[in-house]
Amino acid sequence: MTQPEFWRGKQVLVTGGCSFIGSHLVERLVDAGARVRVADDLSSGRLENLSKVPASDWEFVQGDLCDPRLAAEVVRGIDIVFHLAAIHGGRGFIELHQAACSRNFVLDGVVSQAAVEAGVQNFVFASSGCVYPVDLQADVDKEVRLTEAQVGPPFHADGIYGWAKLMTEQRLAALHEEAGFSSVSCRLFTVYGERCPESHALTAMVGRAFLRQQPFEVWGDGTQIRNWTYVTDIVRGLLLAGEHIRDGSAINLGTEEPIQVREAAQLILEFTGQGGTEIKPLPDKPTGPYNRVASAAIAYERLGWAPEVPFRTGLKRLTEWYFESRQAESMSADEFAERLTTR
Amino acid sequence: MTQPEFWRGKQVLVTGGCSFIGSHLVERLVDAGARVRVADDLSSGRLENLSKVPASDWEFVQGDLCDPRLAAEVVRGIDIVFHLAAIHGGRGFIELHQAACSRNFVLDGVVSQAAVEAGVQNFVFASSGCVYPVDLQADVDKEVRLTEAQVGPPFHADGIYGWAKLMTEQRLAALHEEAGFSSVSCRLFTVYGERCPESHALTAMVGRAFLRQQPFEVWGDGTQIRNWTYVTDIVRGLLLAGEHIRDGSAINLGTEEPIQVREAAQLILEFTGQGGTEIKPLPDKPTGPYNRVASAAIAYERLGWAPEVPFRTGLKRLTEWYFESRQAESMSADEFAERLTTR
Ligand SMILES: NC(=O)c1ccc[n+]([C@@H]2O[C@H](COP(=O)([O-])OP(=O)(O)OC[C@H]3O[C@@H](n4cnc5c(N)ncnc54)[C@H](O)[C@@H]3O)[C@@H](O)[C@H]2O)c1
Ligand SMILES: NC(=O)c1ccc[n+]([C@@H]2O[C@H](COP(=O)([O-])OP(=O)(O)OC[C@H]3O[C@@H](n4cnc5c(N)ncnc54)[C@H](O)[C@@H]3O)[C@@H](O)[C@H]2O)c1
Repeated sequence: MTQPEFWRGKQVLVTGGCSFIGSHLVERLVDAGARVRVADDLSSGRLENLSKVPASDWEFVQGDLCDPRLAAEVVRGIDIVFHLAAIHGGRGFIELHQAACSRNFVLDGVVSQAAVEAGVQNFVFASSGCVYPVDLQADVDKEVRLTEAQVGPPFHADGIYGWAKLMTEQRLAALHEEAGFSSVSCRLFTVYGERCPESHALTAMVGRAFLRQQPFEVWGDGTQIRNWTYVTDIVRGLLLAGEHIRDGSAINLGTEEPIQVREAAQLILEFTGQGGTEIKPLPDKPTGPYNRVASAAIAYERLGWAPEVPFRTGLKRLTEWYFESRQAESMSADEFAERLTTR
Repeated sequence: MTQPEFWRGKQVLVTGGCSFIGSHLVERLVDAGARVRVADDLSSGRLENLSKVPASDWEFVQGDLCDPRLAAEVVRGIDIVFHLAAIHGGRGFIELHQAACSRNFVLDGVVSQAAVEAGVQNFVFASSGCVYPVDLQADVDKEVRLTEAQVGPPFHADGIYGWAKLMTEQRLAALHEEAGFSSVSCRLFTVYGERCPESHALTAMVGRAFLRQQPFEVWGDGTQIRNWTYVTDIVRGLLLAGEHIRDGSAINLGTEEPIQVREAAQLILEFTGQGGTEIKPLPDKPTGPYNRVASAAIAYERLGWAPEVPFRTGLKRLTEWYFESRQAESMSADEFAERLTTR
């Protein structure tokens, strides 16, 4: 259903484009013929993430998008904004840095305001599964499929990171209703793939396998369920949403494949020839909700979107990428430990 | 319990100081010997509100505090911040302008960030009864006393205006916990008094009496309950909070005196010699929750604060002020109608 000609020649801004997901999105947009501007302060993003994209194919602006002047400058002449810039990291970061995450109220407000004032055609917001009520995600024995309408009020988002995503969704919905501003909020669910950093659980586990950790640690009791969604599927969903949804509504992008942390750990150990290694749960570490899985029904209905990469395939790719890139940079165990809780 | 010497010589910033409440606060601070800087963009505030304060006693900076440069400039050298600037108005405004109110995410975030970076001694935030779950405030037959701990999660604030206040409370709490930043959030309940504009229910009703409206309109069915709290009581509470609370917590400032809209209307008609005028409810107009009354227990415990001005007394003062000032400016019926939904 993606129309490649839709993107040809479009002026597209990707905020946070040097991030894990952002860099995959930029690659895809450039492939589709868009003219891409990336704005990023490189606080967690890395220019190397875009090293495969020829410099002539995209423009880079470095700076803090909480600054309204910079935001106004980068949206100038833009048709479509993908707003991914955020104070964000994996569970190890967001749970321990609530105040830092509250800066997203400003960041999202400033970037969306600039887009409103520039009159862009569509604003695609990287929201999150963290907007869903945490009490719906507590029981590992239930079959959970979080559906868009389950986001209240009352609301019970997951930490200040989740509250900020939810409030930006609310603002975008109000801007559509009261001022006709076009937008779509894509609730991304636990994304993984090449370039995903170690503060996210899967990459952390791959890192432990790389370091041949014994016993092999997992955070939480290991029964937690996530619907890890591969980054190319996410990027395809973002593009489709940018093409087809403009009514300020929110949509899930996430698989319906539930995986337990300990299953993922076992697969990684198997891939790396360490099957049988003892797994040691660390129940006091940050874990987030115990059972988070999206319903993908509305994304299918509205966009024809369905995830294509099964977990086993995606995890294998992540593992291979990680071993290759970390071998090259020779990371120490101390460096690794620090990365678990930093962006 | 207020120690006047506490404020003597203190450098105090009042954002939104040209507003209704802000101007009363500035008067009181100047009386107490503080050195006051007011920052306001005059979007709803008016310089006339401060006409009684000698120009030599305060400094004025005009500008939009969503601009981080201006925010950094106005907090420089400041000991204590009272943050009152907000996109806000009475029920007639906030219910119909959700997108505009969502700018408060930025405004609060920028001002608080500037205060953090300047290392101010305390940050007093003008929060609101709008942070309370609306479902606790639906039944006029119940005795309602909203207590601080009733604010979730889950949360159910009153419109985006209320959500923004709540999120700033959360951010301030996190900043205290994670970075030791001192603050207090004062949940102000339906404030009234001299200089309160017509988008607020009481002033609207006094305005109708001024115009000798027949039949006399009230918004909603008239049974709605509020604990209207007189502005000098509020200002005394803000000062006490600024002196004594620094732990990032939230506290109610509101009376425990429940008044119905139709009672208030009858009192106003009585004061203005129009007793017996027919009252006409307009149930489709914005009303907000039907039963909002604060518990003042914690403010009394922590600050020794209790409201001193009974409703009848305060309402009389509001009525007298209104008749005096509007006589002078000769407002037309059309102008009046517009004011009901503007800031
Ligand atoms: N990774 C996930 O599982 C996941 C899930 C849901 C939502 N998201 C959202 O997707 C987006 C991308 O996340 P990610 O995981 O790829 O990496 P990320 O969180 O590192 O991406 C954020 C990017 O924004 C940049 N940035 C941060 N603050 C900035 C500022 N003030 N000005 C300019 N740039 C700034 C960072 O440098 C980084 O490149 C984020 O909005 C995130 O909240 C991610
Ligand atoms: N009046 C009430 O019943 C009530 C109840 C609860 C909380 N509050 C809060 O108390 C504060 C004062 O309210 P009020 O009723 O006296 O009047 P108000 O809402 O008009 O005050 C807001 C003030 O902020 C200024 N302002 C708005 N945006 C600004 C910006 N971007 N930069 C600089 N200044 C800006 C306005 O000009 C105005 O002077 C507000 O924060 C309001 O939310 C009021």
